[in-house]
Amino acid sequence: MNSKYKVVKFNKNRFEKIDDLISIEEPLEISIKHKNQNKWVTNILSITMRTPGQDEDLVRGFLFNEQIIENLDEIENIENIGNRVGQYEIHNKILVTLNNSKNVNISKIKRDFMTNSSCGVCGKSSLDALEIIKKDKTSSSKPKLSKEIIIKSPAVLRNNQSEFSKTGGIHASGLFSSDGKLISLREDVGRHNALDKMIGNTLNMNQIQPEDQFITCSGRLNFELVQKVLMTNISLMIGVGAPTSLAIDLANRFDMTLIGFVKEDSFNIYTNNQKVIID
Amino acid sequence: MNSKYKVVKFNKNRFEKIDDLISIEEPLEISIKHKNQNKWVTNILSITMRTPGQDEDLVRGFLFNEQIIENLDEIENIENIGNRVGQYEIHNKILVTLNNSKNVNISKIKRDFMTNSSCGVCGKSSLDALEIIKKDKTSSSKPKLSKEIIIKSPAVLRNNQSEFSKTGGIHASGLFSSDGKLISLREDVGRHNALDKMIGNTLNMNQIQPEDQFITCSGRLNFELVQKVLMTNISLMIGVGAPTSLAIDLANRFDMTLIGFVKEDSFNIYTNNQKVIID
Repeated sequence: MNSKYKVVKFNKNRFEKIDDLISIEEPLEISIKHKNQNKWVTNILSITMRTPGQDEDLVRGFLFNEQIIENLDEIENIENIGNRVGQYEIHNKILVTLNNSKNVNISKIKRDFMTNSSCGVCGKSSLDALEIIKKDKTSSSKPKLSKEIIIKSPAVLRNNQSEFSKTGGIHASGLFSSDGKLISLREDVGRHNALDKMIGNTLNMNQIQPEDQFITCSGRLNFELVQKVLMTNISLMIGVGAPTSLAIDLANRFDMTLIGFVKEDSFNIYTNNQKVIID
Repeated sequence: MNSKYKVVKFNKNRFEKIDDLISIEEPLEISIKHKNQNKWVTNILSITMRTPGQDEDLVRGFLFNEQIIENLDEIENIENIGNRVGQYEIHNKILVTLNNSKNVNISKIKRDFMTNSSCGVCGKSSLDALEIIKKDKTSSSKPKLSKEIIIKSPAVLRNNQSEFSKTGGIHASGLFSSDGKLISLREDVGRHNALDKMIGNTLNMNQIQPEDQFITCSGRLNFELVQKVLMTNISLMIGVGAPTSLAIDLANRFDMTLIGFVKEDSFNIYTNNQKVIID
């Protein structure tokens, strides 16, 4: 979603007034209504700065990736609340009702946000915390990719972004099958939101098959992005830019293959390099 | 700060094992000790994923930019607490003691984090909230810049980054005088942290003179970055990438000039275009 702004462009030694398309950034307040000791309660869970659109997918992915729900069946209903904002069909408040049987301890969740998602006080302790959560999950066999598919995936992502060509200012995450086919793509001014939206969408469409898929993200790879992909059990992740130390440490710990710095004829494999390339 | 990792690089049609330098990402837990109704209390204020180094400047800038303090005199002491992490001199817990006379309402601060910093529930209401805070501040006269200085500032930033050339994966913020001289530069894997560190450093060195200065940031410009610069009263901000809608709206509201998409021979002026260029 974008909006037209008046801009003064300096180019080829002269100034001109142009109309420019700008990616919209608006806050989204996510509340959850849930049972706690047999009483229905509603709490604000998070406020994120996002590009409006596919907010339901954003919420699905966010709740799943942040381990508030284990599967989408636990969501009874998602609805926009609050007024329309601005000239577009934008609502900045969303209410998720969890189902009857789901008991949520909101203070525990808020504590976990501090210790897991925002990531504990030293890198090591937060990796340990994630290990406890991941124990229940089976690790999947890895897809094998050709070098060409790795190199092409950022371009496939960019060519399929509807917003990037207009505004030049929006991140993207894509789910790919191992033969390089793009399954789902989502865009957002926040790269973590783009990933939440894409994962929320593909979970909802039952499209995630970890043994044959990989995820490519625009930009750099940090702890938060790797942690979100980890929750899908997809074990191969590609970033256009550089990873951080903690992104590599986390990928290593959970046997994920992390590839970055993808250019026209080169890329770096940061973890688990033997297991990926077929030729 | 960076660390050496073993990486498999695919380049010119062959694989080789290399040592690569990776930007370090580690969590920093910021606690404040402050008086509340005449009793000393300590609260965890925030956890941020940052590149270790200049943590004291990060904390100074963060407290100022998030409006928890009005000037650095309110800080009595900053100290590392907790153990050393990993092989480096990294401490992931920091305690800020505010001075005796500063009464802090921590629950109000946490509520403000939700409504201001993380930005309210619709863009408009959060702009209003900031307006209340900014009322006390005098708006400064703007510096006049030449086109050449605007175009050169991202390159000056990049050429002075000590980490970017090594890792290729780190953001930067720089304070410049209107004649294009770089006054201070800070780097971090998080762009908001780079800006907090740079503002914390220049506040501490008494180097901020809004009427003759501008700030340049790597990457894209969002609401959060513009809001932080606004607190310094510096009224000219340059980003290498695209701004979001809310970044432009916020700059407009407070009469800040926002310039983006700076390339070798072009740039865009998004707000207050008449007031900046001298030739």
